[in-house]
Amino acid sequence: MNKTGRPQDLPLSNPRADRVRDVAKLAGRPARLKRGHFLVEGPQAVREALKLHQERLAGGEPGVVTEVFASEACLDRYPEFEDLAEGTNARLATDEVLAAMADTVNPQGIIAVCRFVDVSLDTVLDAGPRLIAVLCQVRDPGNAGTVLRAADSAGADAVVLTASSVDIYNPKAVRSTAGSLFHLPVVLGADAAELAAACRARGIGILAADGYGSLNLDALQDENARRRLTGAGPASAFDLGAPTAWLFGNEAQGLSAGELDLADHRVAVPIYGAAESLNLGTAATVCLYASARSQQEPAHGETTHE
Amino acid sequence: MNKTGRPQDLPLSNPRADRVRDVAKLAGRPARLKRGHFLVEGPQAVREALKLHQERLAGGEPGVVTEVFASEACLDRYPEFEDLAEGTNARLATDEVLAAMADTVNPQGIIAVCRFVDVSLDTVLDAGPRLIAVLCQVRDPGNAGTVLRAADSAGADAVVLTASSVDIYNPKAVRSTAGSLFHLPVVLGADAAELAAACRARGIGILAADGYGSLNLDALQDENARRRLTGAGPASAFDLGAPTAWLFGNEAQGLSAGELDLADHRVAVPIYGAAESLNLGTAATVCLYASARSQQEPAHGETTHE
Repeated sequence: MNKTGRPQDLPLSNPRADRVRDVAKLAGRPARLKRGHFLVEGPQAVREALKLHQERLAGGEPGVVTEVFASEACLDRYPEFEDLAEGTNARLATDEVLAAMADTVNPQGIIAVCRFVDVSLDTVLDAGPRLIAVLCQVRDPGNAGTVLRAADSAGADAVVLTASSVDIYNPKAVRSTAGSLFHLPVVLGADAAELAAACRARGIGILAADGYGSLNLDALQDENARRRLTGAGPASAFDLGAPTAWLFGNEAQGLSAGELDLADHRVAVPIYGAAESLNLGTAATVCLYASARSQQEPAHGETTHE
Repeated sequence: MNKTGRPQDLPLSNPRADRVRDVAKLAGRPARLKRGHFLVEGPQAVREALKLHQERLAGGEPGVVTEVFASEACLDRYPEFEDLAEGTNARLATDEVLAAMADTVNPQGIIAVCRFVDVSLDTVLDAGPRLIAVLCQVRDPGNAGTVLRAADSAGADAVVLTASSVDIYNPKAVRSTAGSLFHLPVVLGADAAELAAACRARGIGILAADGYGSLNLDALQDENARRRLTGAGPASAFDLGAPTAWLFGNEAQGLSAGELDLADHRVAVPIYGAAESLNLGTAATVCLYASARSQQEPAHGETTHE
């Protein structure tokens, strides 16, 4: 089994080697900021990182993966990594070394070191986005990663984290994205007011997800559907099919008064039962899917009714 | 500040006392099964437990809270607990004792011991439910709790966990429900095939949430809306407004072949971006909200269009 791409050297086997410690240090923010690199653990996330890496190289751009460490067993189980890792700095490593490098207990046989992948706000806005998820002062890495993954699922064009949000390169956040961190552009450290002004200048509507919002998301969807399907009913307060930036707030406090003021509308996901609130990840999913559906739907409606 | 309900004794202050250890043991399954009691931590969850307790007592039924332990500071901050805990076996405790009792690092000043609250499948089905969330072999306590909370938000009438699912009385699962465990009936240890047969016998449709499903949830919602709003368009494969049990599978493997076979339809939440999948909590939320909207909508539609 000596396919192209499989590292030929002996596996790294000393968990106390400097090289291993250097990788392990990336679990901490100071080392990440100093080096501009972060840890990616497990087959799914490393696969998505390597796909982006190869795409970038094919397009003449710099890659994102600087090192890959994998066990023999992992390469036997996922032979695709031999091609995907071609041209990267790939090394075999023992499970003990991988465990010493990893933040998680079990990196499932493979770890990559990647360059930061975030882009500037202008880069995102200049591409003419239709759907943006903005995380305002979100503090829990698992929540941030879950929302990024949900945004990817809903086909969002970008995710923006405002200043004083959690570091998306935190290993737990990276794990929670399940590879989505490599699928759509991410902007870090944005100023919410600047972001709102820039969106408004480009005709992107701003909706705040807010449990106390006066607009009910399901009523808004109903209005949108009725107008589209029947041409009747009241004009909708907001066209969910239009370019939209959704603001999502801190998991404990929600959006601040200042952040709420930046929005065109405050929209509540309705609670049909007795729950006090939805958690951040689930509320964001419902909001982003509502936009995604509306942005997809005109084609269906026209086909059947025009 | 000697309001009714505030315990008058000196606070429990010995974290090594037998009574404290007995409470702490409820973090483990053997002690829970032996005693039929579980731990509830933090003001939000304890508040919801006490509300249910008082409702039950008012209705002449046995209560659910057997003991409450709270710090003076917590009762100062949340004075409503003095009324809510009236008639329960409530004791003041030091923060050190509360920390020794708790599974979490910080129980935020209050802990309750509750009787198991699960009910039988027949109890749930005899009440004529319209929306049921069924967790099939879900293993992560946080996921199970998150789906239960989402089901509560979507107004589901019950949550069913099949045999070999995680124990919903695990402290992490209880925390993730954010009090919703006390809002809607929960059935434990159900047999999926028996459940499906019982649902079918009562005219409850069964949908399997399955990333490979042939029905697209958003297309299904569109068909439902078009039929309702215009009377035109193709008949929908499934009326989302009808009584429905949603099957959600294990977080890693999804639903088994046997579980999929129990469903009337396999329904996929569409992925508009590059994500491989949604996580369990977010997928379940989208599915349950789709049903909730459809079950609410007829009233709106009739008002405007009949």
